[in-house]
Amino acid sequence: MAAGIKKVRGALDLALIVSDAPQTTAAGMFTTNLAAAAPVELCRLHLALSRGRARAIVVNSGNANACTGRDGTRAASAAAREAAKLLGLRAQQVLVASTGVIGVPLQAEQILCQLPALKENLSVENAAAVARAIMTTDTVPKSIVLRSENGGTAVHLAGIAKGAGMIHPRMATLLSFITTDAAVAPEDLGKMLREAVRVSFNAISVDGDTSTNDTVLVLASGSSEARVASNRAGGRHFRAGLTELCQTLAKMIVKDGEGAQKLVTVDIRGARKASDAERIARAIANSPLVKTAIAGSDPNWGRIICAAGYSGAKFAPAKVEIRVNDFVLCRHGLDAGFDEAAAKRELEAKELTLTVDLHQGRASARMWTCDFTHGYIDINASYRT
Amino acid sequence: MAAGIKKVRGALDLALIVSDAPQTTAAGMFTTNLAAAAPVELCRLHLALSRGRARAIVVNSGNANACTGRDGTRAASAAAREAAKLLGLRAQQVLVASTGVIGVPLQAEQILCQLPALKENLSVENAAAVARAIMTTDTVPKSIVLRSENGGTAVHLAGIAKGAGMIHPRMATLLSFITTDAAVAPEDLGKMLREAVRVSFNAISVDGDTSTNDTVLVLASGSSEARVASNRAGGRHFRAGLTELCQTLAKMIVKDGEGAQKLVTVDIRGARKASDAERIARAIANSPLVKTAIAGSDPNWGRIICAAGYSGAKFAPAKVEIRVNDFVLCRHGLDAGFDEAAAKRELEAKELTLTVDLHQGRASARMWTCDFTHGYIDINASYRT
Repeated sequence: MAAGIKKVRGALDLALIVSDAPQTTAAGMFTTNLAAAAPVELCRLHLALSRGRARAIVVNSGNANACTGRDGTRAASAAAREAAKLLGLRAQQVLVASTGVIGVPLQAEQILCQLPALKENLSVENAAAVARAIMTTDTVPKSIVLRSENGGTAVHLAGIAKGAGMIHPRMATLLSFITTDAAVAPEDLGKMLREAVRVSFNAISVDGDTSTNDTVLVLASGSSEARVASNRAGGRHFRAGLTELCQTLAKMIVKDGEGAQKLVTVDIRGARKASDAERIARAIANSPLVKTAIAGSDPNWGRIICAAGYSGAKFAPAKVEIRVNDFVLCRHGLDAGFDEAAAKRELEAKELTLTVDLHQGRASARMWTCDFTHGYIDINASYRT
Repeated sequence: MAAGIKKVRGALDLALIVSDAPQTTAAGMFTTNLAAAAPVELCRLHLALSRGRARAIVVNSGNANACTGRDGTRAASAAAREAAKLLGLRAQQVLVASTGVIGVPLQAEQILCQLPALKENLSVENAAAVARAIMTTDTVPKSIVLRSENGGTAVHLAGIAKGAGMIHPRMATLLSFITTDAAVAPEDLGKMLREAVRVSFNAISVDGDTSTNDTVLVLASGSSEARVASNRAGGRHFRAGLTELCQTLAKMIVKDGEGAQKLVTVDIRGARKASDAERIARAIANSPLVKTAIAGSDPNWGRIICAAGYSGAKFAPAKVEIRVNDFVLCRHGLDAGFDEAAAKRELEAKELTLTVDLHQGRASARMWTCDFTHGYIDINASYRT
């Protein structure tokens, strides 16, 4: 629905996601920001009270309902309570999410008065509109549906996500809602979600800012009658599917990063420890100097080794090899003597991989980031006003 | 001199700083980057070997001599050795510093053949040219001279600095050379330098990247015959002067930050612990979202509280007050109901202070940062090529 929360008249900004199945289980992951928004706090509370048995999600864009004090908490609670009443659920079975500007009071009435119409319009066909209704600075809606086999029974996974700025791998990143018809116990669902988020939403960076509102929620209706347990063979398939779904959505977020023109995979190999590989991947993916060099297709590998050097990881700079795709820029920590024009051509691709091989062990890490352009500054210099 | 290390014909890129006094003491602080440049390693070695008795500094811009392997080490050593021979010193009494592009071999010959001419031109009058010769993306040279009294004897402090990008408060920031005619023992000089750097070069941020070449060196000639010890009254004056000098140079660097249009002082007050205050100051000073909002004069205080929230510091968001200069944007963690146009006017100043009062204790911290504009991206998208 267009509830008037966004400034642009008629822009979609409110959605309702409901599972019809009474046996639906739910799990969530949220921002680690101390100034977490009211809907994040409410989700944590409702998932605990319902013991992972939520059935519905109310989500708005255009206002983050963060730094809004008690009125913000009341607005989020009222949305959950009213939706529950309309749907015949308990309030704790309804989750709430918000995204948009921080510090502006959210008018609960704008949401409450639209809930009956939202309920009337619930349909599988309208799912695509939900992906649009949660967009802020996103330029494209992000959704994906996967089908996997679970011992002869088909299981479906569907996910939508939004996010373009304030993207940093500290926890789940901005909003993503995932639904499945698999039957999964809440604790198994939570465990598999954490594993999937670690290598997807937690492995992307746009600007190094951790949002106040990051939320990833999954609802499992069990209507396919395929039972999935994390320690069984079917669980492996489901986990792989959930991970693929989260990674696909996460990459869509980076590709649509504020001002981004390129999707960059940062591959770290040959580290002594996984934690070293992750630190280096993170430092490179977050470095404004690496990201601006990629924007300009400048094969400035010195900035990559510089970012690795300040990451806090242990490694020998003199062993490092750096490649863009299969093209070697740096070998033994030194300029590989490459052809400048050829390197530039490799960097001009819309999707590219930076590989840093430390040649010191067998641990690895992968992250996704984007280039840093004028567009980011244009979008963020006047976002609020 | 113009030694041809920079691509622009005739651009100053090589300088020599010498103290005539045999009793000169020296101290230095360097990058914490694991991939430290060859001249940084050489400075560490020479300061240790000479026990803080260095007399000269050879510095070039246009090439960082970082990630250049054994040839890089040889080039730095050769510069020190040749300068020492010309000046009648031991090699360990000569320090070397470089700044510019990473990963390009430095031709030692370009430096060596200019050393005799550099020696010929040594003079107090040429000091201003040294500040120009160490510039890279800097748009203005940065220098300052201070005079302080030390028990009736005048003591002079002179400093120059360069730096505009790859500026992050992990250690000393890029290059700064300080000279004084005070007589200070090497260990006292080192101690007072560390204290001054902590609240100056280590309290500024342009882009969050820690350089491979950061170097701050101080030479104390003792020619004023004013003896300064860190634990005496005169030491307090000298320390205050050294701190003021470093802070002034550090603020010049931020003001001239790549693409910067505004100098922003970030003042954190009312924290329970100094470490909390520092974490919050750092997160705000580094946040691309805060810095782009300042570029657009957008009073987006939500991003400031968001950065504080992910800084890792402990505080109650509901107590936070945020001001730009004396203008209140946020009180008790909520929108203060301010006049939008008046707030925008405050933010349009070329120099402004963001104050975050946590109202939870007495600890404080201060940092300096700049806004984030198109200019930064223009400069860095094609720096190398």
